[in-house]
Formats: sequence, C-alpha cells, structure tokens
Amino acid sequence: MISKLLENYAKEPSYSGTCEAANAVARVVPVTPLLEIDVNGARVFLKAESVQPMGAFKLRGAWWRLVNLNAEERARGVVAFSSGNHAQGIAWGAGRLGISAKIVMPSDAPKAKIANTRALGAEIIFYDRATEDRAAIAANLSETLGATIIPPFDDPWVIEGQGSAGIEATAQMAALGAGPADCVVACCGGGGLSAGMAISCPEAAITIVEPEGWDDMTRSLATGMIESVGANPPKTACDALMTVQPSPLTFAILSGRDAMGVTVLDEEVEAAMRFAFTNLRIVLEPGGAVALAAVLAGKVRLGAQTLVTLSGGNVDPQYFAAVLSRAA
Amino acid sequence: MISKLLENYAKEPSYSGTCEAANAVARVVPVTPLLEIDVNGARVFLKAESVQPMGAFKLRGAWWRLVNLNAEERARGVVAFSSGNHAQGIAWGAGRLGISAKIVMPSDAPKAKIANTRALGAEIIFYDRATEDRAAIAANLSETLGATIIPPFDDPWVIEGQGSAGIEATAQMAALGAGPADCVVACCGGGGLSAGMAISCPEAAITIVEPEGWDDMTRSLATGMIESVGANPPKTACDALMTVQPSPLTFAILSGRDAMGVTVLDEEVEAAMRFAFTNLRIVLEPGGAVALAAVLAGKVRLGAQTLVTLSGGNVDPQYFAAVLSRAA
Repeated sequence: MISKLLENYAKEPSYSGTCEAANAVARVVPVTPLLEIDVNGARVFLKAESVQPMGAFKLRGAWWRLVNLNAEERARGVVAFSSGNHAQGIAWGAGRLGISAKIVMPSDAPKAKIANTRALGAEIIFYDRATEDRAAIAANLSETLGATIIPPFDDPWVIEGQGSAGIEATAQMAALGAGPADCVVACCGGGGLSAGMAISCPEAAITIVEPEGWDDMTRSLATGMIESVGANPPKTACDALMTVQPSPLTFAILSGRDAMGVTVLDEEVEAAMRFAFTNLRIVLEPGGAVALAAVLAGKVRLGAQTLVTLSGGNVDPQYFAAVLSRAA
Repeated sequence: MISKLLENYAKEPSYSGTCEAANAVARVVPVTPLLEIDVNGARVFLKAESVQPMGAFKLRGAWWRLVNLNAEERARGVVAFSSGNHAQGIAWGAGRLGISAKIVMPSDAPKAKIANTRALGAEIIFYDRATEDRAAIAANLSETLGATIIPPFDDPWVIEGQGSAGIEATAQMAALGAGPADCVVACCGGGGLSAGMAISCPEAAITIVEPEGWDDMTRSLATGMIESVGANPPKTACDALMTVQPSPLTFAILSGRDAMGVTVLDEEVEAAMRFAFTNLRIVLEPGGAVALAAVLAGKVRLGAQTLVTLSGGNVDPQYFAAVLSRAA
C-alpha cells in the first residue's frame, strides 16, 4: 500500500539525496548551530533551524528543489503558494539562481511579508481568500507559463532538502563525540521536515510532534491511513503547523519508518519558548518549539542521543513579550 | 612603552596560541553560528557567542587557561572572583577537568547564579561587598592553597582563548566564500575578547565598542595611556561591560594594533536587541549587543567583510519583554 502511495511522484526521496542536498545547502547557507542539553541524564541535541537566514528550515527544501530543475524548467520559472516561510525560501533561492518566481499570496497577507517576498525578487500574485482557490490559481499559472509548481512539502526534492538538517546534525554530533541519533523528535506541519529527518537519520526511532487538535499526522500514523484534522479544530499558537492532512508522500515515508506522533498544548509550547530564551538564548516561534515542548513535558521516550528540531523563530515581538511575562 | 606593559606576564598572547585554543575549544564546545547580514551593501558577519552553553564567550578563555595548567597547578586548584559568566566558565571547565575551583562571590549574588555555579561543581566563597575586598580574598586563598588565580581578562591564555572565536569565524567566513575579516567590531568590557580578536584577525582594522560613560578603553586608546572611567559613571543597561579600567595587557594589545573605540547609548543597544530578535531570532543581552548597535547606528566604518561579535545572551526575561514592547 505504501508503494502505491508513491506512484505519482517523480522519484522516491533517498538517503543519498539528503547527503547531496546537505552539500548543496552548505554552499549557500551558514551551518545552523547544534546545541546540547541534558534531560534526565540523556544527551539531547537541538538543531536550531530557527537561526537560518529566513528564520526557518524551509530554505533547505526550496534550494534543493530549485537546483534540481533542468535548464528548460529554470527558464520557465516556478510558482509557489504560501504566505509563509516556504514561499520566502523559494523567492530567496530563485532570486539567487536567476529563476523567475511567482508567489500566490492572499491579498490580506501581512504587509511585511509581502514586502519581504518582493524584496527577494519574486512576483506576487494576489488572490481573495473568500472567493478564490490558490491551488487553482497556481495550477493555472503553471499551465499557462509552463512554470513548475513547488509545493511546501509534497515533493521528493523538498523532503530531501529538509532532511539535510539531519545530515548536518549527525556530523556536528560526531564532532562532539556522539554517534548517530537513535531518536529523532521533529516538529510536524505537513511532514516535510519530519519525513526528511526520517530519511537522513536511518538509525533513529522517529517521533513527530503536532499541536493539540491539529493531529492529522499523529492520527494517520496511528490508524495506518491518511486522516484529516477533525471539524472545527481548536485555536493554536502554532500557526506554522496548521495543516489539515499529510501528503501521501510524507505519510508513506513516516509510516514506513513506524514513526509515532504526540501532541502538545499551547502552555507546553510556551514553556518551551521560555526554556529556549533562558537556557539557549534563542528565539523560537510556537510551531518551532513543539518538538522541544514534547521532550521537556516528558512525552517522548528519549534515546541515548536524541536529536530534536527547533524549526523556526519568526514570532511577533508583542506575543513573545507576553509569553515571557507569563513566566513571572 | 607597550613592551614594558607586557613585562609582568608569563608570555605574550600569539596568533598561533589563538589557533591552538580554537582546536582545544572545538573539542568541548559546539561551534557557534556565524550569521550574515547586509548593511548598506557591505557583508557583515556576526559571531553569535550568545549561543554558547553558558550564554557567553567566556568558556573559551576559561578552558584554554585551564588546559594550560601543569599537573602540579591542576592539583592545587584555581580561584576566580566574578559573579558573572567568567566564573561560570571556570566552574564548568574545572569540573570537566577534575580541578578544584573556588569562586569568590558577593553574599548578595542572585540565588540562580549561586545555584548554577554550585551545580557546575565549584565551591563558593562568599564575601561582603560593603566591608571586604574580593581580590584580597582571592589572593589570600591563592597564597594559602597555592591555587592559581584566573582573572577574567588580564591573562595571556584567557585572551588567546577568547581570540579563538576569530579563528573559528574566519573558517566559517571562508566556507561562505568570504576572505579574512578586514574589519572587526568587538564588545569591550575589560578587553579580553577584543584583544583576543585583534590577535586572531591580524588583517583587520579593530574597533571596540563600550557603553556611553563606561568608555575607559575608548579613552585609553585615544590618549595612548591607561585611563579610568570618570567619577560617577552613568547608569547603563550593559551590566556585563561595567569595567572601570583596561588591564595593561589588553590595552597594550589593542593599542599596538591602533584599535579605536566608539560608545553606544542604551537606546541604540536596545534597538540592536530588537534587530537581533526579529532578524536573527537570537537573544542578546545589552552588553552582548553593543558591537551590533554601533554597526547599525552607523558609528563604524565597515570593511568589505566585517566581523562583529555578539558576545552574550543572559538577560532577564521581564527586561527583555520591556525592550520588545518599546518597539511598538
């Protein structure tokens, strides 16, 4: 059944692909720090992707997809739909490679995000959230222009690119005298990062972490088939992780590795954000702190050397100040 | 005159010493990230020492001093006086090497700092700020026990150790296609980090940055002799940089390199902290943000590839929340 899920993709993401992606990414993006903490005597390594140039791991997948386009595909350009970090990653990478990029964004997107995406050289195509479908707009653009759509996680190269974080972390762990991770805990929205880490960390037990109520991957892994979040999912602080369903590809990869999912509450996420502030001196956004939150809340069975992703750090200063103040 | 200042030291810090220190430090401490920003078209690289295990660069100098003690010195132990990051660095390093460490701290030091230092395995010797002199207590301990005093900056190995940050950064810059720094901007308290960077970045023009009113090194470099801060120096947010006078060694090194000093206002420092929060997603304490503040305020003439130290990130959450709120 798993192999059937993979039928519609150009290729299956591979370990060697994540290694090649790591080499490609290292040439354009600074190495992100690997921080170490002790959790009840276990060594826990934290891969701080929040310190990436655009504040999240998304550059990795975007870059690896873009450099794998052939000359003809590059000439026809790319399309992405997302108002978040993925689109910025595509805009950034396309700008560096001289590829024309169109980003489909809602017309009410934050002005700062629009300006940032434009400053990176991308063209923005606005749509009305209420009346239009962004996927249809992107598909239409793709058909008219012959441009390649780059989805945020449902793509073998994007997944390999995200997985490069695991290759990089393994080398950093070795430099600190630790072997490969026997346990990986990854933040999960659509599953691009977690699936990539599952591939690049072949010896590890994989746990994915989602916000309470946004547990589509957790439930899918539990039942063995693709599930959606329930009707009327609750509010969550983790805006970056509000996906409603895994993609066939990310689900197949994680399911094939017997990954399991856990969920965390906003309070646990905010406690992890404060922990990161005080003990690691880094800024995490809620969605970037879920894996750490699960570890600190004792929800994950740790290995001898656990690798945890800190996936992003783009957070509103007023909200962050409020989170810090709640500590008192 | 410079060479006369160096007469009382066991050795003169050297470039090769900073290289050896970098190798020694890399074996025990994760590599800190090198972040890149564009400032008016110039490449500016930021060495984020705030992400060090104890939140500051001080581990580097502490470790390099400790591993250079001979067997007899190690057996007799070490003494440090400081309630800050240097003492924690000594406690951390001594604990790892099995060296007995005594830290002289004021009896009214923050409980968290006392607990942290103890947890690292050091013994704390309390003194009364009002009636006792910590240097005299340390000297007395040193004489009685034969223990080695490790000063926070007035020591050739400590300076070489701090300079290892420059060696590490140069390698990271090379990986990103940049040559050695032609301009270094360093946070300056007693001058240990800036003197170390001056040695490990031999091709760079050196600028040190101090808080307004705490400009002892700036004035010393301007007049060519060791100056103290004025009587009744103003309040500053930069508690880590409130030194009243350079040491002969740090002054001699910086003066020998024709370094110049600039000062920054608290408002400029807080703007830099907000910049780091939003654009770098890292937490800086005021003293750790002065060099970045000077660059962002346009107070430093930048090179083609400027290297800036972000020296520490230990900051009270309520104060940090207030700094973020002032942005609105």
